[in-house]
Amino acid sequence: MVNRIFRYELPTTIEFGNGAVQTLPQHVRALGGTKVLIVSDPGVLRAGVVDRLTAPLQENQLPFVIFSEIEPDPNIDSVDTATVLAKSEGCDLIVGVGGGSSLDTAKAVGLMLANEGNIRDYVGINKVPRRGAPVIAVPTTAGTGSELTIWSVLSDKKAKAKLSVGSAYNCPTLALCDPELTVSLPAPITAATGMDALTHALESYVNKATQPISEGMSLQAMKMIARNLRTAVVQGENLAARHDMLLASLIAAMAFNPTRLGLAHALAMPLGAQFKIPHGTVNAILLPEVMAFNLVGNLEKFKEIAGIFGEKTDHLSLREAAERSVSAIRQLKADIGITQTLSDYGVTENDLDAIVEEAMLSGNVPVNPVKPTLEDLKQICRAAMSASSALAN
Amino acid sequence: MVNRIFRYELPTTIEFGNGAVQTLPQHVRALGGTKVLIVSDPGVLRAGVVDRLTAPLQENQLPFVIFSEIEPDPNIDSVDTATVLAKSEGCDLIVGVGGGSSLDTAKAVGLMLANEGNIRDYVGINKVPRRGAPVIAVPTTAGTGSELTIWSVLSDKKAKAKLSVGSAYNCPTLALCDPELTVSLPAPITAATGMDALTHALESYVNKATQPISEGMSLQAMKMIARNLRTAVVQGENLAARHDMLLASLIAAMAFNPTRLGLAHALAMPLGAQFKIPHGTVNAILLPEVMAFNLVGNLEKFKEIAGIFGEKTDHLSLREAAERSVSAIRQLKADIGITQTLSDYGVTENDLDAIVEEAMLSGNVPVNPVKPTLEDLKQICRAAMSASSALAN
Ligand SMILES: [Fe+2]
Ligand SMILES: [Fe+2]
Repeated sequence: MVNRIFRYELPTTIEFGNGAVQTLPQHVRALGGTKVLIVSDPGVLRAGVVDRLTAPLQENQLPFVIFSEIEPDPNIDSVDTATVLAKSEGCDLIVGVGGGSSLDTAKAVGLMLANEGNIRDYVGINKVPRRGAPVIAVPTTAGTGSELTIWSVLSDKKAKAKLSVGSAYNCPTLALCDPELTVSLPAPITAATGMDALTHALESYVNKATQPISEGMSLQAMKMIARNLRTAVVQGENLAARHDMLLASLIAAMAFNPTRLGLAHALAMPLGAQFKIPHGTVNAILLPEVMAFNLVGNLEKFKEIAGIFGEKTDHLSLREAAERSVSAIRQLKADIGITQTLSDYGVTENDLDAIVEEAMLSGNVPVNPVKPTLEDLKQICRAAMSASSALAN
Repeated sequence: MVNRIFRYELPTTIEFGNGAVQTLPQHVRALGGTKVLIVSDPGVLRAGVVDRLTAPLQENQLPFVIFSEIEPDPNIDSVDTATVLAKSEGCDLIVGVGGGSSLDTAKAVGLMLANEGNIRDYVGINKVPRRGAPVIAVPTTAGTGSELTIWSVLSDKKAKAKLSVGSAYNCPTLALCDPELTVSLPAPITAATGMDALTHALESYVNKATQPISEGMSLQAMKMIARNLRTAVVQGENLAARHDMLLASLIAAMAFNPTRLGLAHALAMPLGAQFKIPHGTVNAILLPEVMAFNLVGNLEKFKEIAGIFGEKTDHLSLREAAERSVSAIRQLKADIGITQTLSDYGVTENDLDAIVEEAMLSGNVPVNPVKPTLEDLKQICRAAMSASSALAN
């Protein structure tokens, strides 16, 4: 039983299915949009994905402008540039298409079309005073869940820091999810983003802020990832696996939106910013080490996770069964080709003090199932630096 | 994989927890309410539950008017009466408190404060042109899920018919769920409403319109009902069981809101209207017979349901394992004291033609996992008329 009052809300309407992107014009019209700013990145543009949105807009005489300068770990200054463009062009609806970077930026631009000042004024949680312009989020990766989260994670390149804006007003108006757009995603990005989705579902499931609505969503997302992530990576063209991975990523976001996450995400932010490790990869590197540390916070749930990932645990003690969740995730990582360690990205012992001090400030720490010390966080990083964080448990 | 585009939305914000009802004034203010119409029924009023809402309103100088004339199977004419009262008193926010009858009426009154004509004009699905006044739904039973469904089921007493209004605009603005309000519910009503919640989760889970978001919610609701319904019935004062039953009912509604249900609900409407069988009771009577008929539509899912309700099925064939779901639900009904049959309410063979013809028109039929003939529906009713629909499978 949860002995507190919790809130659950889903401000974003979801439209999900193969071919869904063809319905874009009717949604733009229903939301009152007369001119669209499309926010994307050069890779998505080059891959022809933006064309799949602009073609139906043209057919329906809906004017649009494209801003496709979003980079990985999107620069917070891009929000300003795109907002100025939207205003000067008279755009009244934002469509973000791409991975988390494009969607996070598109969401922030939507906010800035209806709020004063600069996006930097709204860094933190619940700082945004009013609803923004309508935003349609079209994900092309299955991982961040940005198409319905409250979060935009933006980079301050000079400060080598990640700035997070979290607000119910930052949820897109519509998540328009078309699995066909994800079929061309390369295997390494499929693997890394899939591990991000898994980290969302799992960290939310075992943390102290969860409740049965989120737990139900976490379980469903983990089951779907256990069944489909390997196939999506090794058979990229498998539309059924792509469909269920995109949906699992979305369902994981339904779980963690109100609960926050845990130590993997707390550490991923400074590590990602300072060592340019892609967000999914750094989560994948950290996740088994964080699980091993967190086990004692909820043996039953970690045993359940082991079962979801195919481990047989009936003959084991509860403690041993829980540990099997860690080896199962290590095996999953190996199967999908994630072999990197933090050392591969240049992280050394000397960097750890600064990393763990910044991580400790994260809102993901207080909800973690085990309260960590700074030394605990360093030990997790050390384990994630060594190659022994590979298969052997 | 789902090979179609589906929509999922949750227009209602959920606030859930013991003592939640004390936060009513802040929610009324946040929604811009200046004068409240409380819609309830004589039983809830007598039990002192309405006082638990009016006390904090008074403390916060928020004026209110009480309309407490709602009866079971609420009369559609009550919507008109309460709407006239709300307008004449200048109420701009509706609070429904009670079981499904009070909540369904409160929702319809909210609609009629902002839409022209009469509620009868909007019977059907998606007929309502615009959002209504804000509605806060405070459930006192754990079953209908009316606190967040799109549905209001209203009775035309003269025609002995149930009229359903279904619209996203008919979802309450806020579901304010306080398990403490359900502790005094008598055992028979706890049992019947709990079986309604189970029927929602189960019929949605096996039907043809479901998708993985709803499936995740159905599984979570069924698990919570399997763990808590018996305890909530036999230990009414057990707040933990009450908490999880109220939450399970809500989660079941999150599942079925976009999927509709199945044959139990299709038959429950005409049977309930013509023979005055409480909605939960008629569903409980029908559910095992409908399950036995629907088994062949999805053996895997019925096997999974058997497992959720504690059956051991590893040694059984898939067909036998699926059948165990039916005996498990019969056992649950027996354990919580539901022994009635349709015959006990006066249903005879001569009534069946009219019943099944009306049932066949229900929107719950096309989504059912097995396409029924009129004769199939009669056979289900016959099984539900006889005492052999008791324990023996
Ligand atoms: Fe993440
Ligand atoms: Fe029902």
